[in-house]
Amino acid sequence: MSPGALRGRRAGVVVPAIVAGLAVGAAATFGLTRWLGTGTEAPVPFYGEHQAGISTPSQNFAFVAAFDVITGSKDGLRELMRRWTDVAARLTAGPQEQSVSGTPLSPPSDTGETFGYEPCRLTMTFGAGPSLFDGRFGLSSMRPAALVDLPPFLGDRLRPELSNGDLGVQICADDAQVAFHALRELVRAARGLAVLRWSQQGFRPSPEANTRRQTARNLQGFKDGTANVDASDPVQLARVVWASGDDGAAWMKGGSYLVFRRIRMYIEVWDRSSLQDQENTIGRHKESGNPLGGTRERDGLDLAARTKDSPVIPQDAHVRLAHGDGSEQILRRPFSFADGVDPRTGELDAGLLFICFQRDPRVQFIPIQARLAENDALNEYIAHVGSAIFACFPGTWKGGYIGETLLN
Amino acid sequence: MSPGALRGRRAGVVVPAIVAGLAVGAAATFGLTRWLGTGTEAPVPFYGEHQAGISTPSQNFAFVAAFDVITGSKDGLRELMRRWTDVAARLTAGPQEQSVSGTPLSPPSDTGETFGYEPCRLTMTFGAGPSLFDGRFGLSSMRPAALVDLPPFLGDRLRPELSNGDLGVQICADDAQVAFHALRELVRAARGLAVLRWSQQGFRPSPEANTRRQTARNLQGFKDGTANVDASDPVQLARVVWASGDDGAAWMKGGSYLVFRRIRMYIEVWDRSSLQDQENTIGRHKESGNPLGGTRERDGLDLAARTKDSPVIPQDAHVRLAHGDGSEQILRRPFSFADGVDPRTGELDAGLLFICFQRDPRVQFIPIQARLAENDALNEYIAHVGSAIFACFPGTWKGGYIGETLLN
Repeated sequence: MSPGALRGRRAGVVVPAIVAGLAVGAAATFGLTRWLGTGTEAPVPFYGEHQAGISTPSQNFAFVAAFDVITGSKDGLRELMRRWTDVAARLTAGPQEQSVSGTPLSPPSDTGETFGYEPCRLTMTFGAGPSLFDGRFGLSSMRPAALVDLPPFLGDRLRPELSNGDLGVQICADDAQVAFHALRELVRAARGLAVLRWSQQGFRPSPEANTRRQTARNLQGFKDGTANVDASDPVQLARVVWASGDDGAAWMKGGSYLVFRRIRMYIEVWDRSSLQDQENTIGRHKESGNPLGGTRERDGLDLAARTKDSPVIPQDAHVRLAHGDGSEQILRRPFSFADGVDPRTGELDAGLLFICFQRDPRVQFIPIQARLAENDALNEYIAHVGSAIFACFPGTWKGGYIGETLLN
Repeated sequence: MSPGALRGRRAGVVVPAIVAGLAVGAAATFGLTRWLGTGTEAPVPFYGEHQAGISTPSQNFAFVAAFDVITGSKDGLRELMRRWTDVAARLTAGPQEQSVSGTPLSPPSDTGETFGYEPCRLTMTFGAGPSLFDGRFGLSSMRPAALVDLPPFLGDRLRPELSNGDLGVQICADDAQVAFHALRELVRAARGLAVLRWSQQGFRPSPEANTRRQTARNLQGFKDGTANVDASDPVQLARVVWASGDDGAAWMKGGSYLVFRRIRMYIEVWDRSSLQDQENTIGRHKESGNPLGGTRERDGLDLAARTKDSPVIPQDAHVRLAHGDGSEQILRRPFSFADGVDPRTGELDAGLLFICFQRDPRVQFIPIQARLAENDALNEYIAHVGSAIFACFPGTWKGGYIGETLLN
């Protein structure tokens, strides 16, 4: 996330928002009402050219989930996407007022655990996995060339129960209960049409913790995202993120390809390694985030710099391999996870829900990850245990539904 | 949680804090600095007569964890508690500045993922499980009579990997990353002395979501805590929560007994039941929280009221059985959990991390739970799958350590 986007993400942060040139009037109003204890954050608009949750500044929580479709018909699939659109439009819009009372002899129309709560910047971003195009719905010819099956990468330790799926959704909000409620309403709305395949939960440091507005740190204690694409810059988004639809799938114009990797970090091992090992592994200083040999966090990587014996940024440093020749970029939108104790080892089952968006994974995520899988020094401390790819649909407008460009 | 406590929990909520008679100057200062984007919440004091995290208004997140001691000596156990006290005193106090740089050839002195972050009302509450008194440390004669092994309850489906432990800790904060970091530092500090047995993660609706300051809702969509003990009232705390030390364990004076139950909710089944079934199961109205037959949320339960055929609050309603004759009270401090998909059923593995504090579980939690286990209509929709009891030590003062009354 860019520093501009981070500064602007909370309406209550008035002064930096002015600096960043955002909607100052609204920010001031929200800041004041919040200060008085009655305000809240503005909802993230659901309708638009693109789905929300991609260029949206990251929220504090995510549930990433995948569903398998159990209806056999394209009509059923269309009905599912219409229902999900209704749920998402309703839950993201404002205080959640759907009746939990209703008719005594029917189930409540909403599960109720967020009744009267604010949406807390809730976004729900939907995509189609490769298996949706396997012929069940007559969509084989619509499969985008860019929606490849991810190739096996060296060192992959993928678990099927944490991977793949016909449909994927990224649900984000600044409140965990609001985010979970949205997932649950999707499960309910899918009844008879699709079943939940997996769901994974992640978090990021909140602005209330990160008052100095540092680049967010991941569970290895390093800043993560310093060199990320600036999601507030439409030029960068057009170049890196938004699909053009020219890969034989015009229906994806304005959409984006999401690659998800559940990256387990062996944090106990990491924690026992020396600072120098950690910094050489990443290629940056831990506290400052400066690249090795640099003096400021946002300095470019000096990949040619050498000490007498060796490159300042080692050949197998994570940043060097991720950077490559600089031609491949992705918009990263990761969350950390911490799911208790791994029963096989007694260690913490923690790490990163790596999520990235791009125009075409064939020339963005895949070559980057192929390099990392082969040589990244970080591989000693991590393992990829879950994986999925989804073609995230373009946005929709009132009266339409997410997925309509594919299903109409 | 009482409404007064909830209103006062965020320093930024100035007006209700004035109404509640809290420290107005501090609140106003924090509110203003927060509004300007540079402020934060006041840390929860670590030192004191009682441990923090018991009467503290609930934070947004919890990691509840248990450790098994692997050192065989009382000296080792004392060393562990000293180390943990140091970690807790440091992390709860203020922006986290422990060096992550240090000596290049040593591991960093802090894992670093919250470097420079605010403590976000972090609390760490430590307790001893029954197995700590099994003779390994010469503490058998010190076991409090109130620290019973919880009896088996009808319907228990306890899983050992989510239950019990020599030592327990409740870690709470308004930020998930801050809370996780604290757990991880405890694991690190325990190296060679104790190992993590289990860790479970929970959340509550944040004040940013719950702007109307409703009683928090659990994942069944009902308000949970309407009739809870008021943790801001020292008289109620003295009567219900703080151990007197007169059960043969003077070292527990000022401590409290924590009972933990992981309660899986079968929420898909619940969601298919009618509103009337749900309300009769709980004994309250879903939307308002009013007891059946009542007109306000905080109305007492009219257990004698009848329609022509039957009691207004059914004989097997949860609130009726939990209430009993009203003589048993506990301070509840629960969090919801949502841990992905249960691989055995494909359903959401979600529910409640039930946590309660009390002077003596023998006459508080145990009789309440025995009634519920036998007859509660809610049992159709839930199962207790994890369980633990811990004697939470009294507080300590600068220079001392948590557990000193037991171990000195």
